[in-house]
Amino acid sequence: MSRALTLAARGLYTTEPNPRVGCVLVKGEQVVGEGWHVQAGEGHAEVNALAQAGEQARGATAYVTLEPCSHVGKTPPCADALIAAGVSRVVAAMQDPNPLVAGNGLQRLRDAGIEVTCGLLEEQARELNPGFIKRMQLGLPWVRVKLAMSLDGRTAMASGESKWITGPAARADVQRLRARSGAVISGADSVLLDDSALTVRASELGLSDEEASAAVQRQPLRVLIDSLRRVPLEQRFFRESGPTLVISTSAEQAAESYQSIGSELLALPGDDGKVDLPTVLRTLAERGCNEVLVEAGAALSGAFWRAGLVDELIVYMAPRLLGSQARPLMQLPFESMSEAMDVAVSDMRAIGQDWRITARPIFPS
Amino acid sequence: MSRALTLAARGLYTTEPNPRVGCVLVKGEQVVGEGWHVQAGEGHAEVNALAQAGEQARGATAYVTLEPCSHVGKTPPCADALIAAGVSRVVAAMQDPNPLVAGNGLQRLRDAGIEVTCGLLEEQARELNPGFIKRMQLGLPWVRVKLAMSLDGRTAMASGESKWITGPAARADVQRLRARSGAVISGADSVLLDDSALTVRASELGLSDEEASAAVQRQPLRVLIDSLRRVPLEQRFFRESGPTLVISTSAEQAAESYQSIGSELLALPGDDGKVDLPTVLRTLAERGCNEVLVEAGAALSGAFWRAGLVDELIVYMAPRLLGSQARPLMQLPFESMSEAMDVAVSDMRAIGQDWRITARPIFPS
Repeated sequence: MSRALTLAARGLYTTEPNPRVGCVLVKGEQVVGEGWHVQAGEGHAEVNALAQAGEQARGATAYVTLEPCSHVGKTPPCADALIAAGVSRVVAAMQDPNPLVAGNGLQRLRDAGIEVTCGLLEEQARELNPGFIKRMQLGLPWVRVKLAMSLDGRTAMASGESKWITGPAARADVQRLRARSGAVISGADSVLLDDSALTVRASELGLSDEEASAAVQRQPLRVLIDSLRRVPLEQRFFRESGPTLVISTSAEQAAESYQSIGSELLALPGDDGKVDLPTVLRTLAERGCNEVLVEAGAALSGAFWRAGLVDELIVYMAPRLLGSQARPLMQLPFESMSEAMDVAVSDMRAIGQDWRITARPIFPS
Repeated sequence: MSRALTLAARGLYTTEPNPRVGCVLVKGEQVVGEGWHVQAGEGHAEVNALAQAGEQARGATAYVTLEPCSHVGKTPPCADALIAAGVSRVVAAMQDPNPLVAGNGLQRLRDAGIEVTCGLLEEQARELNPGFIKRMQLGLPWVRVKLAMSLDGRTAMASGESKWITGPAARADVQRLRARSGAVISGADSVLLDDSALTVRASELGLSDEEASAAVQRQPLRVLIDSLRRVPLEQRFFRESGPTLVISTSAEQAAESYQSIGSELLALPGDDGKVDLPTVLRTLAERGCNEVLVEAGAALSGAFWRAGLVDELIVYMAPRLLGSQARPLMQLPFESMSEAMDVAVSDMRAIGQDWRITARPIFPS
């Protein structure tokens, strides 16, 4: 199963909107087939492993990181393929996260006389697909907020001056975060101030040529939250290739002009006159986004956080002091200690000269 | 030498104002004597090791973490003791940092026909005594600024509310920082707001009973920077046992009242009408303080930092968000990125639920 998880991870940058899945077929002590899901529309992990094993699949044990599917999607059901190949035992790491189908694939295998177990290395399997699982279960994507800050918790000078707080290794890490995401969300202020494109660039991923070129074939949807449509269509954000989506509080007659440059305008107003962030996320989930990366300033990042929409906070901390007048990490206007929010730091590591802190919110129970 | 460094570190909390020194006597493959300096007025490391070795010292090699002294202080010179014991070879990690005497002890040994080498594991030896070295060379102590902050770089709510940002393991770590320091400096605002005593408490050190009771026998000098003498003499700061020193901009007729409660008042005004911080540090060095710990709020910590007086910044980062209105790490009123200051993170580690970041300033060259 450990090998199957490693194989699954090869699809990290390419499987969206599908999950990352790996499969290993073992007969006796010998691996007779390996496969992983590469991208939507192509073979699932099980099918790829069966193709490699050929006749040797008969009587083999299949280790698969996710319950084999039992429905016809873009490809026929994998459960049927395993049955047809004569596999005698299936070990799955986890059930299908969709509550409506969970267990159906395993049941189908059992009904065909195959010995089935489920739950081996489940935690690791879940970590591979946080977004797919959340989207299947809640109709929402897994939301990461990425911020670059100084040691004293500041993201930019008061004037907005901010570029290159962190070093090249951290920026490559952000490129990889983008590459694994279904969508990258930013705000008008950030896009105007930094003239950022939010694209994935092969040369900056810090991956092998082969991985990098596979990763950039699928650009994440670049989403711009721009309530007042302040970002001009000439901005670099719109000029770079790859799909973009602008979300405003009203579309009026503007939709066509966005369409004319290959973008899309959606009006998703909330009760408070601002863009309705939960609806943004639901819309992205409906479009197949499993993982969403928010790369925005203190205001928009803070709005996602305050609305309880953030699953992971990823902070790159640079060895620098920007001072007490500089901009805060996130706009969180707490007045007393009772409003302070605890987080769980799940990972802390050096990334070049900087440090990456991964934290998840702890909601009061 | 590695063993000698380990022995030297046993004096971490007790040798001030003296340096931490360890000594190992080796004859052939066998250790015949070990010693370390425990506290001022008691035997130096070499003398303790020689006492353990007795007659076996003759012809032995002495590994010592600091050049043996050649002058008569509270105890006779160690160089003479090594010569008298018939040691045939001395390996020192580093020279005496006092530029006026550096090398004299080693020369004395050489003149007596002893084979002498110096520089083995010098870097590690220097790390043992940053304060002693700086005081000998520059007449200033090694200054650490300790701050506890949230993940978003805040030390307290805007109201000042701040207690217990970090957990018990971090607080024990701060106790050990105090215990190794010659003086702990705080400001009037902190002492008034937190009613802090800044003492070393045996039960909170997280050390063995033996180590803890040795550590608390010497309390660091508690220094209060109180320009306007706002902290009343009834404050807990003055009630706890151990020496205290109040530094103000003027003493007027007040010195006696501080003296009457066992404290001391010094007037060290600067040109700007505030307490002159460089003079504070020089005064503490003159009184034998090797390491000084600043435990103050954003204003005083920032003042030390801006004056270029800080050698190490020690930040305890709690897994919590205090929000964008909360108090900054340090008052550093930078306006543009060109004023931002780079630091070198020399250590980062988990301390209980918190993280400890050790950083040193990088001064523009």
